Formats: sequence, structure tokens, C-alpha cells
Amino acid sequence: MIKKVDHIGIAVKSLNDALPFYTDILKLELQGIEEVDSEKVKVAFLKINETKIELLEPTSEDSPIWTFIEKRGEGIHHIALGVDSIQDRIEEMKQNGIRMIHDQPKTGAGGALVAFMHPKSTGSVLYELCEKKGKVE
Amino acid sequence: MIKKVDHIGIAVKSLNDALPFYTDILKLELQGIEEVDSEKVKVAFLKINETKIELLEPTSEDSPIWTFIEKRGEGIHHIALGVDSIQDRIEEMKQNGIRMIHDQPKTGAGGALVAFMHPKSTGSVLYELCEKKGKVE
Repeated sequence: MIKKVDHIGIAVKSLNDALPFYTDILKLELQGIEEVDSEKVKVAFLKINETKIELLEPTSEDSPIWTFIEKRGEGIHHIALGVDSIQDRIEEMKQNGIRMIHDQPKTGAGGALVAFMHPKSTGSVLYELCEKKGKVE
Repeated sequence: MIKKVDHIGIAVKSLNDALPFYTDILKLELQGIEEVDSEKVKVAFLKINETKIELLEPTSEDSPIWTFIEKRGEGIHHIALGVDSIQDRIEEMKQNGIRMIHDQPKTGAGGALVAFMHPKSTGSVLYELCEKKGKVE
């Protein structure tokens, strides 16, 4: 059911300040930077074999990442699990009593279909289900 | 240099309470449970393709995981990056101005050699370097 850890999301105040550690010191490949309007974030993806580090910079004070940084500081925000058939997976989670933040998948970075589980159902870890459409990685 | 995300460490109060979500609902394979005396934790590894989720339960009030849970609550604790030649990697980090919590690798779960970077050098993310010795995975 779960294919891999698709990415790990990390909240940062500034991509420009955060990126040199990843590109120059860890020597990870920067795959691209994009804005995700629905979440009011600017996102940078760094490849680590089959997984990615996703750096998330808020572009507005009403971004959920802004709120996260205000409350907890910069740091690890979520873990995204790569799945097939995300709608079926959401139904399966609900049948198992897991509270979903999103009952329906929404479009995230890279055009992926994503849905978050509520941390109250997962031992305080923010897990994302993530389905990549028609994309060879 | 960095081969993969070896595992993601998650602090939990109780393995018994945390495990059913991973084994029964996410249907991940439990690879084993062991005690790591040096960190005063009991650890469960759950396989997700090339990566693992590492659940960490403190076995004593002087465990760093106990302190973490007291301060921040349960949740994601660290990201472990799989490397070769960990001693060389530690030297490389130090040459790049990264503060290491461990200047020398120590033995972690599964007999791996591990060394943590100080979050002050990494944008508040606790990164572990992790080298598996003589083990085909």
C-alpha cells in the first residue's frame, strides 16, 4: 500500500538562507523551486535517492507554514507517504478510524494529489498521503 | 555522498500504543524491536522500501527522548542520512563549519555507526549521519 517515503517537509523562514546547507554541504541535487498558491508557500525539492527533502517557505502570514514557525520554530513539518489510488487510501484510513484533514485529495507541489491525516490520529506526526500522476521518477 | 534517507526517528511515549497505527493501519512490516542502552530507548523499526520509521520509547527519565517528549510532546525527532565512511563525512562537515554533537561515531541501533549534527548548524533539524556495517539490506 505505501510505496515509499516520497518526501520530508521542513519549514524554513527563507529558502535562500536554508538552501546552501543542502546544496553546498550535503551536496544534494536541487530539483526545482515552485510556488504552491493553495498553501501560500514557496517550495524547494532536494533529491536523496527515492526520497526528497521539501523545504517550505511561507509567502504570507496566513500560510499554515507561517503559523507552524510562529508556534514551534523552523524544523521538520511533515512526512509524505507515496501511495497509489489515493482516494481508496483515504477511504481505508477513515474506515480504520483515522481522522483526515482532507477527505478529498487536493493538488500539491508538482501536481501531486495529496491529503493530510490529522496528527491526533497518528501519535502527533503530520503524515501526508501523496500520489504522483503520470510521472516517471 | 548521501546514499538515502536511512530512517526517520519518531519519539513516542509507548511502543505498544504507537505500533498498531503502523502495523495494522499503514500495514508496514515491523523489522524488530531492540533496546539501545547508550540512549536509554527501546526502538522499533518499520520498513518503508529503502527507508525505515524508527519509533523511540524512552526507558528512563534521563533518556534524551524523555526530555524531548517533556519539552515538545511526541512527534518527529530526527532524520538519519545513510552514508559511507562516516568518519570522513564527520571531518567534511566540521571543515564546512557544521557543529557536530558527536565528533566520533558511536554505536546506535542495529550496530550502526552514528553521529548527530547540531540543529543550530542545520536550520533546527536534528540530522544523524548513519553508516551500516557489513549488512546487506
